[in-house]
Amino acid sequence: MAFSEQAAGVYAITVTPFHPDGRVDAASLDRSTDFYLQSGVTGLTVLGVMGEAPKLDAQESIALVRQVVKRAGATPVIVGVTAPGFAPMRTLAREAMDAGAAGVMIAPPHTLRSDDQVVAYYRQASEAIGSDVPFALQDYPLAFSVVMTAEILRRIVTDNPSCKMLKLEDWPGLEKISAVRKLEADGRMRRISILTGNGGMFLDFEFERGSDGAMTGYAFPDMLVDLVTLSKSGQRDKAHDLFDAHLPLIRYEQQPGVGLAVRKYLLQKRGVIASDAQRNPGSALTATARAEVDYLLSRVARHDPRARL
Amino acid sequence: MAFSEQAAGVYAITVTPFHPDGRVDAASLDRSTDFYLQSGVTGLTVLGVMGEAPKLDAQESIALVRQVVKRAGATPVIVGVTAPGFAPMRTLAREAMDAGAAGVMIAPPHTLRSDDQVVAYYRQASEAIGSDVPFALQDYPLAFSVVMTAEILRRIVTDNPSCKMLKLEDWPGLEKISAVRKLEADGRMRRISILTGNGGMFLDFEFERGSDGAMTGYAFPDMLVDLVTLSKSGQRDKAHDLFDAHLPLIRYEQQPGVGLAVRKYLLQKRGVIASDAQRNPGSALTATARAEVDYLLSRVARHDPRARL
Amino acid sequence: MAFSEQAAGVYAITVTPFHPDGRVDAASLDRSTDFYLQSGVTGLTVLGVMGEAPKLDAQESIALVRQVVKRAGATPVIVGVTAPGFAPMRTLAREAMDAGAAGVMIAPPHTLRSDDQVVAYYRQASEAIGSDVPFALQDYPLAFSVVMTAEILRRIVTDNPSCKMLKLEDWPGLEKISAVRKLEADGRMRRISILTGNGGMFLDFEFERGSDGAMTGYAFPDMLVDLVTLSKSGQRDKAHDLFDAHLPLIRYEQQPGVGLAVRKYLLQKRGVIASDAQRNPGSALTATARAEVDYLLSRVARHDPRARL
Amino acid sequence: MAFSEQAAGVYAITVTPFHPDGRVDAASLDRSTDFYLQSGVTGLTVLGVMGEAPKLDAQESIALVRQVVKRAGATPVIVGVTAPGFAPMRTLAREAMDAGAAGVMIAPPHTLRSDDQVVAYYRQASEAIGSDVPFALQDYPLAFSVVMTAEILRRIVTDNPSCKMLKLEDWPGLEKISAVRKLEADGRMRRISILTGNGGMFLDFEFERGSDGAMTGYAFPDMLVDLVTLSKSGQRDKAHDLFDAHLPLIRYEQQPGVGLAVRKYLLQKRGVIASDAQRNPGSALTATARAEVDYLLSRVARHDPRARL
Repeated sequence: MAFSEQAAGVYAITVTPFHPDGRVDAASLDRSTDFYLQSGVTGLTVLGVMGEAPKLDAQESIALVRQVVKRAGATPVIVGVTAPGFAPMRTLAREAMDAGAAGVMIAPPHTLRSDDQVVAYYRQASEAIGSDVPFALQDYPLAFSVVMTAEILRRIVTDNPSCKMLKLEDWPGLEKISAVRKLEADGRMRRISILTGNGGMFLDFEFERGSDGAMTGYAFPDMLVDLVTLSKSGQRDKAHDLFDAHLPLIRYEQQPGVGLAVRKYLLQKRGVIASDAQRNPGSALTATARAEVDYLLSRVARHDPRARL
Repeated sequence: MAFSEQAAGVYAITVTPFHPDGRVDAASLDRSTDFYLQSGVTGLTVLGVMGEAPKLDAQESIALVRQVVKRAGATPVIVGVTAPGFAPMRTLAREAMDAGAAGVMIAPPHTLRSDDQVVAYYRQASEAIGSDVPFALQDYPLAFSVVMTAEILRRIVTDNPSCKMLKLEDWPGLEKISAVRKLEADGRMRRISILTGNGGMFLDFEFERGSDGAMTGYAFPDMLVDLVTLSKSGQRDKAHDLFDAHLPLIRYEQQPGVGLAVRKYLLQKRGVIASDAQRNPGSALTATARAEVDYLLSRVARHDPRARL
Repeated sequence: MAFSEQAAGVYAITVTPFHPDGRVDAASLDRSTDFYLQSGVTGLTVLGVMGEAPKLDAQESIALVRQVVKRAGATPVIVGVTAPGFAPMRTLAREAMDAGAAGVMIAPPHTLRSDDQVVAYYRQASEAIGSDVPFALQDYPLAFSVVMTAEILRRIVTDNPSCKMLKLEDWPGLEKISAVRKLEADGRMRRISILTGNGGMFLDFEFERGSDGAMTGYAFPDMLVDLVTLSKSGQRDKAHDLFDAHLPLIRYEQQPGVGLAVRKYLLQKRGVIASDAQRNPGSALTATARAEVDYLLSRVARHDPRARL
Repeated sequence: MAFSEQAAGVYAITVTPFHPDGRVDAASLDRSTDFYLQSGVTGLTVLGVMGEAPKLDAQESIALVRQVVKRAGATPVIVGVTAPGFAPMRTLAREAMDAGAAGVMIAPPHTLRSDDQVVAYYRQASEAIGSDVPFALQDYPLAFSVVMTAEILRRIVTDNPSCKMLKLEDWPGLEKISAVRKLEADGRMRRISILTGNGGMFLDFEFERGSDGAMTGYAFPDMLVDLVTLSKSGQRDKAHDLFDAHLPLIRYEQQPGVGLAVRKYLLQKRGVIASDAQRNPGSALTATARAEVDYLLSRVARHDPRARL
């Protein structure tokens, strides 16, 4: 059940549904798991940044993992275990694997600076969770302030056999995909799965550069699945047509801070979650912003009927 | 000739053209000034971040200002005078105004943290350049790491009568436009011009939120001018249609670091500048990236013939 | 048992003792609690930055709190509950108070920038843990990158009746003590306890400026207690003589990263903990560094026999 | 006249004296040059961080360099040329060398992250100023947020034959001195001069670790010279005695922001500069702070008569 370096397709970054009073909404969580599965995704990623992971305590976190893994059945679930220290990271990782997760994802702490610090961090993280736990490396400088060159990635992948996946959301990131694939082609690095994030802002070209798929949480995962299919079957123009139709909305959803409110509003409109509530510190859409999203939806709907909500 | 709090339309952020050997390309500079004027822009902004301002020494900076101001004639020119200290800021500001500039633009140093530090900085900056010099406040947290709430902006505007314009490129920034306009409507703050940047990524809604126009350097300033016209005349759908047609390219050009290479490549293709060379530290497009830009251009050209290059 | 705005004296920042294999060393933990109590401290602070708090998982954290609180008896114990989200913060805070802790301490996340963001954070934190839990506000820009002016502190204290203490370790911080005390004297802010940290580097003047004591973990808490006594009884020169005798060692122990290794080495030498081991990511002293510490100890010992180890 | 990799002793970081109205005080500048020379320093460093370099415009900067170089005669003068871009860096560096400077000093921009970025920056900087200009590399993470491991330093030194000196003010920095010297001893890196800064806070051990001297601006450069002499002649205890006597004041002067006000106050008291004025943004000592410095002086004076002011 563990994910491998061949992982491909769409891994949906899931939101964590809350009741307006702040409790985890278990019914919406099941409904959202079903929704992603019906959308045709290859896997799920829970407890990511956009899953409000730090806002759950240790018990809530593992409870959520167990519920999603059970519901997802054969669909692999990756669990974000990023933590300020290795002990809580290990605890969640081991419990998640025991619960049937396919692997974990680890982002670096914002304090890392030199190449050696980054490389040492991942060696220690891998030791902490155990070398039997496959992990995805999250490369997201905008959120974590840590810059990883292709060379740093090569060192981490080489050091840690259990590093099987790169969640690439550097900005810019297109050349980095090419650079990593070249390291592999030149025999300087073993193959890893590359899934891209960044809210999907560059998905149109990321496939062409050599990514294996997307790991992002755009509220239309079914469209992401179609995009992968079109790209993989060489229908370039059609892929771009579909992507471009959604781009104005993708771009709106990718705003820092506000983006999660947009995503939850859309998922609520699609009937996936009962409430778009966030735990503190959260954001909410003004009436004007909701009207803007609705207008964008109506424009997307001219090209993609799924946006008729 | 000084710009006022009524400034509106498109202020083009200009690039600085270089010869491949690194010298400023004066002929391209004139051609680029002519190009922007023919595009119908209201004004020009020179020596901004995307104008590679820090890469010019003091003599080159003022020489460039003089050349552009002279060529631009009646079109107002705003000069970026952001500097690590107030003395070089003052020197350039005074020389620029003597040369006929319409005002200056000032971004904050990345070290500012508390509200009081930000407010004090702009008071000292205004004192340094002289209260007779109108200035635009550049609010761009992604580049400068300084967060300015509407309240901070209100304090700066209230403190400094010569602050006439806000270059707003916060991300997210839509609600901030609304918040500033509300402060004005409530009589808590005098009116200022709001021009938006961020590479134009949210121009479609920024006009609707109350901005007076755009201050950005997208390689199709003529399209930006049309967009303002459509927005101001209430042709909402047409404005969004035009914007959406360009958004895939706008998004590609907005990538940090790489973006300037895209912009210069496009301006070179349009015949505006002779070379897309940058001074160190610069970036260059790979063949793959150039092909991606060309493909995006061909797609934009289906909707906008100006993109047929 | 809750601590109040009158808290004074020395609150020792405790280390977390580990066995060389990384397990928490419960015997050393008891011995260290006894040591601090015998040193005459007023209170203890556990799970601070120098207590390697993020390296413990949720179960280990509360187990440590329970053990120390029980051993400490009538001596108040403050628990660091800084966390990346409010749910884990709340869980630890409630469990700690149930176990008999005197209150908690909260440092801000490094992402806060504007005054409003800082103030909002503490309002939400206070709500999360419950308004019945007294908390100390940790103002430590060097570690947390968040700058709090006296005005920000005033707003937080005014907003949150349960904020009873300021752990002040800004650098520089002397004028801030004076500024906070002036706000109180002017009736603009209610009284709070001010304890200072920063490794003790400015303790000599902090008392004179109006601090109520020290909250730091220098390996000679008995000396800190003497320093408070001397300062409070007006023996200025003697206080400075004692402080100056220790300053070379205090300064050596205050080095970022390395400092904890120095502190644990000293506590091991004093027989307080069995091993100076740290969990990953940790630091260790080279032979040269140990010799330097030993030399400094021998020099301190000329003035203070407690340093004869 | 160029400085070499054998540079040793004390290079005084000079302050820039201003009149209360903000003009450079040329008479005090001469007096201060004389003072440093009479103190027995080996060299001078002008336009450093504590020389308020960014507050001077281009003309003032080179005028200051010319005045100091002329006055200093045979004593080498190093010029800080750190700038936001390579063109102004080059201009000042060339003009300074033409004026007779011994070399320049370059600090990295705060945006550098990965090893490759740091190494590339210094390669481009060296190209910009010309390979005939010896430069000192300033390694000061606290001020510049750039972390340089010994390996990064090795790469820069190896890449750039004109890199002759390391101004080391990492915190902690003792092990880095040892690491760099070991790289040299192992034949992995050519020799460079290591002078240490950090306000002198670790000078006592830095000599013992292998530094060649100090490059700092403590207001008692004559004491720094004595310290080098004592250290080099193996009088360890005497060196530490002298250092420890000054440490309380050194520590007070090393406070960020406030430190320069302390230094200028002391230099004014010593009769070196006419006014302790700083240009904006500056800091000033309160009456309480001045009294604290005076008290510290009186305590230092018990051991070192030079502190009787």
